[in-house]
Amino acid sequence: MNNFRFNAYTDIRFGKNQVEALPELIAPLGKKVLMVYGGGSIRKNGLYDKVKTLLADFEVFELAGVEPNPKITSVREGVKICKKENIEVVLAVGGGSTIDASKVIAAGANYDGDPWDLVVDNNKIGKVLPVVTVLTLAATGSEMNKNAVISNMETNEKLGTSSHNFIPRASICDPTYLFSLPASQTAAGTADIMSHIFEQYFQHEKRAFITDRFAESLLKACIKYCPIALKEPDNYEARANLMWASTQALNSLLSCGKGGAWTCHAIEHELSAYYDITHGVGLAIITPRWMRYILNEDTVEKFCEYAKNVWDITEEDPYKCANMAIDATENFFRACGIPMTLKEVGIDESKLQVMAENAVRRGGLMNAYVSLNVEDVVTILKACL
Amino acid sequence: MNNFRFNAYTDIRFGKNQVEALPELIAPLGKKVLMVYGGGSIRKNGLYDKVKTLLADFEVFELAGVEPNPKITSVREGVKICKKENIEVVLAVGGGSTIDASKVIAAGANYDGDPWDLVVDNNKIGKVLPVVTVLTLAATGSEMNKNAVISNMETNEKLGTSSHNFIPRASICDPTYLFSLPASQTAAGTADIMSHIFEQYFQHEKRAFITDRFAESLLKACIKYCPIALKEPDNYEARANLMWASTQALNSLLSCGKGGAWTCHAIEHELSAYYDITHGVGLAIITPRWMRYILNEDTVEKFCEYAKNVWDITEEDPYKCANMAIDATENFFRACGIPMTLKEVGIDESKLQVMAENAVRRGGLMNAYVSLNVEDVVTILKACL
Repeated sequence: MNNFRFNAYTDIRFGKNQVEALPELIAPLGKKVLMVYGGGSIRKNGLYDKVKTLLADFEVFELAGVEPNPKITSVREGVKICKKENIEVVLAVGGGSTIDASKVIAAGANYDGDPWDLVVDNNKIGKVLPVVTVLTLAATGSEMNKNAVISNMETNEKLGTSSHNFIPRASICDPTYLFSLPASQTAAGTADIMSHIFEQYFQHEKRAFITDRFAESLLKACIKYCPIALKEPDNYEARANLMWASTQALNSLLSCGKGGAWTCHAIEHELSAYYDITHGVGLAIITPRWMRYILNEDTVEKFCEYAKNVWDITEEDPYKCANMAIDATENFFRACGIPMTLKEVGIDESKLQVMAENAVRRGGLMNAYVSLNVEDVVTILKACL
Repeated sequence: MNNFRFNAYTDIRFGKNQVEALPELIAPLGKKVLMVYGGGSIRKNGLYDKVKTLLADFEVFELAGVEPNPKITSVREGVKICKKENIEVVLAVGGGSTIDASKVIAAGANYDGDPWDLVVDNNKIGKVLPVVTVLTLAATGSEMNKNAVISNMETNEKLGTSSHNFIPRASICDPTYLFSLPASQTAAGTADIMSHIFEQYFQHEKRAFITDRFAESLLKACIKYCPIALKEPDNYEARANLMWASTQALNSLLSCGKGGAWTCHAIEHELSAYYDITHGVGLAIITPRWMRYILNEDTVEKFCEYAKNVWDITEEDPYKCANMAIDATENFFRACGIPMTLKEVGIDESKLQVMAENAVRRGGLMNAYVSLNVEDVVTILKACL
């Protein structure tokens, strides 16, 4: 069991109507608030009006239109407002994209250069304005972590950056905000959660027993509740467990004592950077093919643990057992309605090579669970076609 | 799934040699430190010298001799030092008793009256000096939570108090500090951890799926690793998993979405208040008898869940299945070397009635998993004789 730091200090307010706590949570942080949000969904479901009413005593500025796979162009806009208006708090109302953009905006407010610098090199991140979030999607875990992923479509780059100061001060997690999500987003969000778990679970360190059991607990929650949420979008129990799974899957709890060995995210970021596809869909497509590719003498035992503890598979032959679990994973994503081939999301063979090269060039894959080179990544991507 | 707040903001530094981070962690909080500790064990194992050396640049005052079941008399001594020396940070080096005492000392420093008032009525707790801990026992979870339990032997009271401001700012959790623990403390500490889990797990709210799976994960860790730690006191993997289980079992993670329904603690506090026995031992004695007593049509399903998910019991008859799990629990504690009757710890029938009356009078038991009156508690305690 490796040494670790765990300090997920976000004040989580989870449940129905918790948004009422917003004024009390923001007041100690400042009066001048930049409210960041995405498309029009929070206007349609009344959340926009609710937040504005609650913050009547604050001076609220707005940045609307943050995209899925949030773009550095939106971040730059937000930073401009912060500097011009001396913003004190950044309030993200939305999913992971909105929250990620808000984090880099909050850092950019205290940085003199182009905020893209902070994405490329997190050593340049200094002071960060406090970030508060109202979560509307169960997926990225950004509501309780130090990560942000920003895309630059000019350079075809989608890069992660992180800072301990990015961790939101408080997050409102109200599962009823998920009721109106389209099925495709519920499914893709769940795939994202599961991928976060896999990226930490499949790792060489075997002695972090609690961390592995926690990971399996969250996987079981996703497998149990995503189909329910798809059938009954306003099933509170299902939405609540998915929302809490998303937060716990990536607040560093699952890397305690073992770290992470991120592979699928490194590959998927290239797909999104070139084709702007839904992150969770890309992950769902890649994951089972990656699992099959890396199944070997070293990894089969871990896959059997996964099979037994998550899927209740009792098959005794190790490889058969492992493959049954991998098939179950792929079938689960397909049953959730996720397009499970690259062709279905408009990706053909033409850029596989360059995307694989980029994924490997950025580092990380050499130290993944099973080390991958360009040829390996191309083979995995071809299996995804 | 009930609404909840989760804000366990402690900066956990877990692993070998993490104590080196102490100066960096304390520096932002102040220069004048009250170091609180218990008996001489930290002098024997070198931790006392290590901490003093690390804090050479700080002004360190000391309060030694905090007892197991920490007494209000020690708290009063600590408060005196804080007020006289204008202490800025309270550093607890020890187990839950030392940490609990430190929390109330840190609150008492900012309170004009007798600190016992803060135990009796937590509404009187105002500002609290920052508390930092170096943990030397896996048991109470005090290193990451808002609770403190203090005993007053003059009034035969052992009472819990709590404040969000009690949560330690940082805690050093180095599993190697557990290597020198006597077997009796390892076992009693594990019983304490397991009781914390039971008190939250056995509850009516059934929809907090993730929370229940997390609870089972931690129980499995205790069941797997306590026997290993007893046989091989310096087994790092075993000590590390027990230490992390202790922290996670009572940092409010296991009450997310379901709260707690504390029963055995309410009863055990009376045993400790009258007989000053080891808390974990009292809990181990009471727990299986309590489980048998409350097993009924309403609770049998939960006990079967416990049987299946924690003990891998596959018996189909529900009551048989539940009783097998309860027997397994009792046998586990006995196999760990814990004295499993009240007689063995010097308690006879003479005070059962008054202890039961006190336990019920303090409230709580009426709202427990299964509501208990004085007669119920006496029956449970008699079964413990």
